Amino acid sequence: MSVDVPVALLGYGTVGSAVARLLAESADDIERVTGHRLRVVRALVRDLDKERVLRPSDGVLTTKFADIRDDASIAVVAEVMGGLDPTGDHVLDLLRAGKAVITANKQLVARRGAELFEAASAAGVQLRFEASVCAAIPVIKILREALVITNVHRVLGIVNGTTNYILTQMESGETYAGALRDAQERGYAEENPTEDVSGADAAAKMAILATVAFGSRVTIDDVDYRGIEEITTEHIAAARATDTVVRLVGTATLIEGRVDVRVRPSLVDRHHPLASIEGAFNAVMLQGDAIREITLSGPGAGGIETASAVIADMVSVVGTTGTGFLENDACWRTLERLPPGDLRSPFYLHIVVDDRSGVLAHVAERLAAHDVSVARLIQHQINGTAGLHIVTHEARWGSIVEALAAIANLPETQGHPTVLPVISDRGVPGLGWT
Amino acid sequence: MSVDVPVALLGYGTVGSAVARLLAESADDIERVTGHRLRVVRALVRDLDKERVLRPSDGVLTTKFADIRDDASIAVVAEVMGGLDPTGDHVLDLLRAGKAVITANKQLVARRGAELFEAASAAGVQLRFEASVCAAIPVIKILREALVITNVHRVLGIVNGTTNYILTQMESGETYAGALRDAQERGYAEENPTEDVSGADAAAKMAILATVAFGSRVTIDDVDYRGIEEITTEHIAAARATDTVVRLVGTATLIEGRVDVRVRPSLVDRHHPLASIEGAFNAVMLQGDAIREITLSGPGAGGIETASAVIADMVSVVGTTGTGFLENDACWRTLERLPPGDLRSPFYLHIVVDDRSGVLAHVAERLAAHDVSVARLIQHQINGTAGLHIVTHEARWGSIVEALAAIANLPETQGHPTVLPVISDRGVPGLGWT
Repeated sequence: MSVDVPVALLGYGTVGSAVARLLAESADDIERVTGHRLRVVRALVRDLDKERVLRPSDGVLTTKFADIRDDASIAVVAEVMGGLDPTGDHVLDLLRAGKAVITANKQLVARRGAELFEAASAAGVQLRFEASVCAAIPVIKILREALVITNVHRVLGIVNGTTNYILTQMESGETYAGALRDAQERGYAEENPTEDVSGADAAAKMAILATVAFGSRVTIDDVDYRGIEEITTEHIAAARATDTVVRLVGTATLIEGRVDVRVRPSLVDRHHPLASIEGAFNAVMLQGDAIREITLSGPGAGGIETASAVIADMVSVVGTTGTGFLENDACWRTLERLPPGDLRSPFYLHIVVDDRSGVLAHVAERLAAHDVSVARLIQHQINGTAGLHIVTHEARWGSIVEALAAIANLPETQGHPTVLPVISDRGVPGLGWT
Repeated sequence: MSVDVPVALLGYGTVGSAVARLLAESADDIERVTGHRLRVVRALVRDLDKERVLRPSDGVLTTKFADIRDDASIAVVAEVMGGLDPTGDHVLDLLRAGKAVITANKQLVARRGAELFEAASAAGVQLRFEASVCAAIPVIKILREALVITNVHRVLGIVNGTTNYILTQMESGETYAGALRDAQERGYAEENPTEDVSGADAAAKMAILATVAFGSRVTIDDVDYRGIEEITTEHIAAARATDTVVRLVGTATLIEGRVDVRVRPSLVDRHHPLASIEGAFNAVMLQGDAIREITLSGPGAGGIETASAVIADMVSVVGTTGTGFLENDACWRTLERLPPGDLRSPFYLHIVVDDRSGVLAHVAERLAAHDVSVARLIQHQINGTAGLHIVTHEARWGSIVEALAAIANLPETQGHPTVLPVISDRGVPGLGWT
């Protein structure tokens, strides 16, 4: 009754060798559930002689891609080598050769998704990519298989563990520099942390989530992102005062058939499910018609976690092959992009002005002139200047930008106003600055 | 290319009519993803002439079960009529007739699961039951399809929305009676709320979750449960003082091949993911080898949410039929039950004693004699008595019971000591009573 399924790996590093080990350990479990016995028969590496902690059987390692592409017995390949070149062409060749491919490579999916899915559909094979977003949290599977009828219209995500670790350390009193150094020492952040702290990594993941959730291609270039490099202990204090926490939040929004995807440091209401995500964890909240909201959270990275998502995809492939299920691109329509200024949200503003009479009125007039309505305002003194902490009602992002430009031009304004979106689905949070 | 799939419903009440409506509205979405077009051709009802908000096409409603059972064109049936009798026999007959069945009926799955799954396996059809636990939160699908290799060894769940609503209202200052009345007025609690507040509903759901997570049958009778009827504002205050919140938590634990499933009002560390679950929401945390922990949360009930889970199961059935995937019972082994006293956890104890010298020593001696180690202790005075608030290190439940029995027998002890398990995966929470 059992079907033998020879599997190949592209890459045999941390994730690849974890996939091989877990597959060997769990072959019985997988066979019991699916009736298929998966075994790694080939793994593409650059150097056959490199020392490896987990030595595969003789003949498994190869340096020749053609050994995998041209082996008709191999039905499923996991791409765990990373990078775009030659990885992308390899994946394309494998799909064209009629092999199902599983990839953990977010840059590849976010940059060459359209082309790869087209090849998969043409060949009638699956391309799965659970591990490319939030490691073992099965958000792609849920979106594609469980929420088919849900019309998901909003996705909120904390999808970068490094920045979430840094921000929660800053909540405990660390400076940005200190928290970053700590993250580097623990291996959460790279020596060059730009990809993470700039928001670029989160942007790639949000592009993938938006694509799957809305069924329309979103690439990294469509994502407006900003990172956490400019977050200071003052922002953390402002968050505490407004009963919120600072998180790097990706939002993908579908409004009247138009899409907006952005990544921003945000103030998240303390009662919002994303506020409880601490350390290097990830979370994704899906909002849709029939489900209201479902939130998934867990570790956002790690070799074993990523390997477990790769294997979950393998199990899903063998469990659905031949049914026509998921052999097509998730994209089935082309949606326009929402003009960035049109996205609405409550915002937190911090403005420093000269402490003299009439200044508050000047600021308030500029906000009102741009239809920005103030929900809460606290003014406090620092060294002869006045700090204004403002939480607005929901406002157009474009109006906020214009109002702040006008305020920045006031002679009484000092420095540059700060603005952070506020994430709260339960009304505008309080402002209890004391 | 499209496959026509005639579907039948057992029941056409709130959930049944929502399933029919969502299926009609989403037929194109489902066809695009699966290649199958689902349409409701039959629905079993008791009264053909009853007024219905959503009137099905002529000829769909029937009062004869045989019209569904004997119609060979019907491949998938959703059971949304509830109850055990005749529902259980109907489901059994349908499975034996070779039809895949989807059920939203937790009592049926928890009480007759073994028999039903045996019939499903024998006929080579699927029995899916996502909607029986936590409505639209796809926890069953994730356990069975994504976490196949994970060795989930612990499941923590807030799986009853009614009690969670009551407890969060009590946090805002309501009494138990007031919060219950409020829940009844909002339709969250039944007029007779026993099933919810006693923990019985949560116990049935935890039995199902434990069965699927551990692959060994757990019935309601195996679940040791207690409800929230005895939770007072004093417990809520104790929670605040220990930086925890009171939640009705189900725990399913697999320790050295033995299973423990229980439901208890618990003090949940404020930084624990379950602490952020408020109102009528549900959440399930899955802890396993390769994933560390994944938490899913969302609304725990509701007609549309339940209907959406039923349809997600239909989509999963048509997407996997013929592959051998999930045509077997999730149970593949028989695990022993852990002796209840052997489960370990930190605990919160509240003991009221006469306020005189030596009493504290007497209490401490009884705890030490039973290997219960105190992590935090606060003593405070009320009207000539002393209230002891204690958080223990991890201890055997059996030792706690014995120690408290010994303490209750001390002449200085007043009334009956209170004990609540503490849920904290990040060490013992603080005790800041002032």
